[in-house]
Amino acid sequence: MDYQSHFESAIEALHAEKRYRVFADLERIVGRFPTAIWRHENEAREITVWCSNDYLGMGQHPDVLQAMTNAATSMGSGAGGTRNISGTNHPLVELERELADLHGKEAALVFTSGFVSNEASISTIAKLLPDCLIFSDELNHASMIEGVRKSGSRKHVFRHNDVQHLEELLKAADPERPKLIVFESVYSMDGDIAPIAEICDLADRYNAMTYIDEVHAVGMYGERGAGICEREGVAHRLDVIEGTLAKAFGVLGGYIAGSRALVDAVRSYAPGFIFTTALPPALAAAAVASIRHLKQSQSERHGQQRQAARAKAEFSAADLPVMPSETHIVPVLVGNAELCKQASDRLLQVHGIYIQPINYPTVPRGTERLRITPTPLHDDALIAVLRDALVETWTALGIPFASTRPTHEERREDVTSLVVAQAGG
Amino acid sequence: MDYQSHFESAIEALHAEKRYRVFADLERIVGRFPTAIWRHENEAREITVWCSNDYLGMGQHPDVLQAMTNAATSMGSGAGGTRNISGTNHPLVELERELADLHGKEAALVFTSGFVSNEASISTIAKLLPDCLIFSDELNHASMIEGVRKSGSRKHVFRHNDVQHLEELLKAADPERPKLIVFESVYSMDGDIAPIAEICDLADRYNAMTYIDEVHAVGMYGERGAGICEREGVAHRLDVIEGTLAKAFGVLGGYIAGSRALVDAVRSYAPGFIFTTALPPALAAAAVASIRHLKQSQSERHGQQRQAARAKAEFSAADLPVMPSETHIVPVLVGNAELCKQASDRLLQVHGIYIQPINYPTVPRGTERLRITPTPLHDDALIAVLRDALVETWTALGIPFASTRPTHEERREDVTSLVVAQAGG
Repeated sequence: MDYQSHFESAIEALHAEKRYRVFADLERIVGRFPTAIWRHENEAREITVWCSNDYLGMGQHPDVLQAMTNAATSMGSGAGGTRNISGTNHPLVELERELADLHGKEAALVFTSGFVSNEASISTIAKLLPDCLIFSDELNHASMIEGVRKSGSRKHVFRHNDVQHLEELLKAADPERPKLIVFESVYSMDGDIAPIAEICDLADRYNAMTYIDEVHAVGMYGERGAGICEREGVAHRLDVIEGTLAKAFGVLGGYIAGSRALVDAVRSYAPGFIFTTALPPALAAAAVASIRHLKQSQSERHGQQRQAARAKAEFSAADLPVMPSETHIVPVLVGNAELCKQASDRLLQVHGIYIQPINYPTVPRGTERLRITPTPLHDDALIAVLRDALVETWTALGIPFASTRPTHEERREDVTSLVVAQAGG
Repeated sequence: MDYQSHFESAIEALHAEKRYRVFADLERIVGRFPTAIWRHENEAREITVWCSNDYLGMGQHPDVLQAMTNAATSMGSGAGGTRNISGTNHPLVELERELADLHGKEAALVFTSGFVSNEASISTIAKLLPDCLIFSDELNHASMIEGVRKSGSRKHVFRHNDVQHLEELLKAADPERPKLIVFESVYSMDGDIAPIAEICDLADRYNAMTYIDEVHAVGMYGERGAGICEREGVAHRLDVIEGTLAKAFGVLGGYIAGSRALVDAVRSYAPGFIFTTALPPALAAAAVASIRHLKQSQSERHGQQRQAARAKAEFSAADLPVMPSETHIVPVLVGNAELCKQASDRLLQVHGIYIQPINYPTVPRGTERLRITPTPLHDDALIAVLRDALVETWTALGIPFASTRPTHEERREDVTSLVVAQAGG
């Protein structure tokens, strides 16, 4: 048995499909967002980051850094244990209170990542409900899919944001069986938004629980930054709101908010929560500072919306194939894994602009794209520079412009049938 | 369907079994390890922590804190993205090089926790090997069990540290099928050590891969702190060494080290790695500082061994039921969930000493214990205070002393059959 050869051929397969990923070695610079130093082949060069999930630049906000360094200096670098065994630090207790308050729920629970929060919470909730049926949006994030799988529950995948399809599935199910609907508010690769109120209506009608992932919305939508549910006044209708501290809040970690009993049950039964070291006090303190700031301040949210709208308008005016998006996310379609990688490489090497190619499995094959995330700190001049660089790249590589490719709707139908086939399997 | 009642009764069940867990709200104090502030019922009180996994006190080492605050101040609080999408920060690249060097392997890969590193790596490695058989020690950590489950591979559970049983299982297996042996070096609840060289001999004989979890050993054993494998001169014989940054190194995160192809395959195929935000630069920088310090310095390791040996000797001399342990871990047997909780409560409330009760599912029922982890910073006076407090508590609660309970061997047999029944299911 030559083990090494199995791993080598797994890697070879990725090269052959042109989706082998190379990580860019970056050093962000506090005070100069979105600039970073890119290290490559013994060279260090300043570049502009256009694909960060630090959506509001809070990862370098003075209050956040102050809270972080203060906590590190006074309480140390790590938590020193799992939550149960000496790791529950005071800033983490405060953070959970802050998150419960943010979402208007009785309780919250923090995990070391959003991935773990989805995987551990969905699987644990479903396992605690006898014979639970899960209804899952076909474009749910990998972490939710892992949670559904791990639960061992029977699942029904509904077409993306399709309430009619969801209703058909709910109606066909045994009324006596527990039901859990899992979906996202903002789908991060397309930037579209779920019909949350309608899904809650269905949950009421068919007596299902609701679990929403707001990771791409917390901090950025709603009067206090509690997400799309807050903006639409429906937060009280969701049983579980899941979010992250690692995107708009600029730190690390994930969480859920919900009723005291539900949160206590996940806390008590989820192995991925129980058997893992707690978040360090410095990160918890940084997250608290970030959440508190964004509860009060609108300027980051307004700035982001403004610059995202401007970027979309500028790119569309330049005939770039901007994919429809209702949010701060600006996806620009390439539609081919190799070209997508080449476009990204060219932007970086020729233009000093860093936008990672988004290929399968993050998005379905055929929808490879550049996913651009304007922040309040990407000013008008940077947008103009990016627009020109994109046009140059599209031209140089022969990538179709908007006016020369099939419409999004035509493409979408193909992709949807593909994804349903995968997700349902 | 009354969903709430399901979660409430799940919690009720824990109360009824006396294993409902209450997390102690702690604030550690840099410069005064092992002292912390314990907040409880609107009171804040100084206590001594005796159950930290910050085994060497590195979580407050000046070099570590300096590296952490420097990185936070210059690079920000978070990574800002997944490893692939703008989150690979320079300190993290350095950390992976440092870890590969530490273990004498070609490459290393960092995860946000040790739990995730085991779950993602074991499942991915086994999935990439067609028809893989996994051979798993019956006392492996929950994170390894999750990894084995997630792989979907056929598994054989071997009796704890029993090379004869492992050989029987290997011998009975199809010689043509790929095989992966997963085990730990130090088992953290008992403090015993695996027969690593013998397991490697079997791996050679039956052409199996080896995956070892060294989370309770890295930093603490070996000339450079690379763990038990280094101490015993066998690191080169292991295919994968898994470790944590959250215990002796005092920070957060987990990792694997191995061949370039294997590490690259896990990097490229593991959803739990791909779809999660990268470790913040400040944590990576702190971990690098800690590893570098412990590569050079022996004083923390020597201090820990000395104080652990002293604690064992003092407690045994006082007739406390110290469970046999070959390592720095000092388990003291209670053998009953409720008494274990009461002992912990009494130590905290009467003596200001914090030792979390260790109950099922962390350890098998009937082996409930206090798990004490002396560090170099727990001095002789603190050990004497703890000994007296334990004796007082044992007497007050009527917990059997060593001379009044069955021997460890008698107990062990019962427990082993129980665990085999569970793990094999």
